[in-house]
Amino acid sequence: MHEYYMRLALDEAKKGIGSVNPNPLVGAVIVKENILLAKGYHQIFGGPHAEVNAIKNATITEGSTIYVTLEPCSHFGKTPPCTQLIIDSKIKKCVIGTLDPNPLVRGKGIEQLKAAGIEVLVGVLEKESQNLNKVFFKYIQQKIPFIFIKTGITLDGKIATKNFSSKWITNSIAREKVQNYRNFFSAILVGSNTVAKDNPSLRCSLPNGRNPYRIVFDRNLTIPEECNIIYNNNDKKTIVVTDDRHVGSEKYTLLKDRYSITFIHTFEGESVLEILKKIGNTGIDSILVEGGSQIISAFFKENLYDGGEFIVAPKIIGDSKAIPFIDGFTPTYIQDALELKNLKINLYDNNVGFEFYKEDGCLPV
Amino acid sequence: MHEYYMRLALDEAKKGIGSVNPNPLVGAVIVKENILLAKGYHQIFGGPHAEVNAIKNATITEGSTIYVTLEPCSHFGKTPPCTQLIIDSKIKKCVIGTLDPNPLVRGKGIEQLKAAGIEVLVGVLEKESQNLNKVFFKYIQQKIPFIFIKTGITLDGKIATKNFSSKWITNSIAREKVQNYRNFFSAILVGSNTVAKDNPSLRCSLPNGRNPYRIVFDRNLTIPEECNIIYNNNDKKTIVVTDDRHVGSEKYTLLKDRYSITFIHTFEGESVLEILKKIGNTGIDSILVEGGSQIISAFFKENLYDGGEFIVAPKIIGDSKAIPFIDGFTPTYIQDALELKNLKINLYDNNVGFEFYKEDGCLPV
Repeated sequence: MHEYYMRLALDEAKKGIGSVNPNPLVGAVIVKENILLAKGYHQIFGGPHAEVNAIKNATITEGSTIYVTLEPCSHFGKTPPCTQLIIDSKIKKCVIGTLDPNPLVRGKGIEQLKAAGIEVLVGVLEKESQNLNKVFFKYIQQKIPFIFIKTGITLDGKIATKNFSSKWITNSIAREKVQNYRNFFSAILVGSNTVAKDNPSLRCSLPNGRNPYRIVFDRNLTIPEECNIIYNNNDKKTIVVTDDRHVGSEKYTLLKDRYSITFIHTFEGESVLEILKKIGNTGIDSILVEGGSQIISAFFKENLYDGGEFIVAPKIIGDSKAIPFIDGFTPTYIQDALELKNLKINLYDNNVGFEFYKEDGCLPV
Repeated sequence: MHEYYMRLALDEAKKGIGSVNPNPLVGAVIVKENILLAKGYHQIFGGPHAEVNAIKNATITEGSTIYVTLEPCSHFGKTPPCTQLIIDSKIKKCVIGTLDPNPLVRGKGIEQLKAAGIEVLVGVLEKESQNLNKVFFKYIQQKIPFIFIKTGITLDGKIATKNFSSKWITNSIAREKVQNYRNFFSAILVGSNTVAKDNPSLRCSLPNGRNPYRIVFDRNLTIPEECNIIYNNNDKKTIVVTDDRHVGSEKYTLLKDRYSITFIHTFEGESVLEILKKIGNTGIDSILVEGGSQIISAFFKENLYDGGEFIVAPKIIGDSKAIPFIDGFTPTYIQDALELKNLKINLYDNNVGFEFYKEDGCLPV
């Protein structure tokens, strides 16, 4: 029974995908004598927590059990502590999916509840509750964005013909999945070559979807001025990562002043990891890496990915001059090849997604 | 009800995979008043037909209905005509999956049955009955072997590292499927490079499996004398396809006389299609093309494949010097890329097979 209600709470939590980021996804349900009294979820960044919404939706709470996917907060953040509200609502029992990952507050919520005489049970669908917030958990602990690498490839592993034609390798169902990813992650990252060749918009086309930040890795500041992500920057979400030697140059100044481009400065030889820390410092908790070849190769080379999905279309370019999705490795034997782990195979009609994770457990998107 | 019994007959037919080739797969069941009286299938090349076995297995046949996946034969071949046996058995009704594809006899079986007063129904699970013998149907009509291309590839479309290491790209479940293919098709074909680099045995390791013919495309007669398929030729199933200019050379004579290698002679500039006709003339009705890169590319280039399966493992070599499974095409745009049709996606744990056919309908293997 506990699992049944916790699963309802998990389903509630997922309704917050996109709008609640970079807050965690949380869902809650209130049950008394096996009757479901109310549901609630964390709906919007900085808004009321799942417990608050569930309690608000319930006509009575006294003597009930609340199921919540993440340990209730015990401190004043953007909102008052949920533990106090649970206590005030005379709730009898609190069933929790997983503890708060933040070492500063972890366990404090359940201490307060127990001190008030509330029965507490922790760890129901714990793995699922943790997977729900893989992004949040990594970021809160490491302050480095969660990195998810996605690209559509042909059966022969290409992302474009030799003339950089790439529209479209994957089918429309697979491309819709990509829109879900864009809604889910805080930012999209591409290389300057991709901007120059494809001139992408890097927006989320889902109804009610959220546009992610658009990050261009462009350490040599070669990005063309005439491109969608520069022109269309009314939301000021375009970020260019470039070496500090370009600060004050004509192009830098133009992009900054005329188009309100945000810059993150790197210095020559700075590692990708250090750059990711700088991006993390801006509050971006997760990055969808969409290519191209050099960027994807760099993230694998430096072992900086947390997961990803390669979507294979049943097409063959068959040209050694076409653009591979990854390059620069030199394994001698097959056993030296990279091997993707913790796989989930996704079918999109006749396209196949290889979804993978460095650590066990997949994202809720 | 007709479909139910025809499906039983189809399941019977499949029991003959391997042993009955290059005869067609045929199954039959005998039913009276909704009671299944007997089943039978064509068990071995040149042996009794499915109808004969089913009738033999039945205690009574008078007034019954026979379901047979392929039109009963009406002529003396390796065995007496089945139509006469059906008539003699006082069977009342004959339900047929599909007509005989051989234009010389097509429809003659049902004529004889009808002339004897037997009720005949044709076309129950017709597509399935045709798919069962896709190989036989093509060969009987065109005298060109059915071509099925199979290879295991990495996510980046490679079949080996730059050092030709290729063991193993795919997992054991996928490799077992390959053994089923080897049992199903009459012959395996590889290029001389594959023999030189991998020294394969090209045998079927299934219990009770049948070893296919081993064909090497080796127009320059570069095959090493010291290799498994030359040494281990007790069954005399190794065939080398080579240009006629090598006839009588020292190597040719050695291979022929000492190792009993069979040769098929080609002449310079002869097309692959013409060579396939020569192979077809030896009685080989189907070929599993296992590589390498040059051979697979040639079959696609000349559009000579009927189907195939590319099994993708979640591994990445990531080296532009590694061996691609296909090369030599130069599409400008994505829409010019080869696109595999009539797809069936097969899951082998975390390996994914893209099974494809030029024409609708998949093989029963």
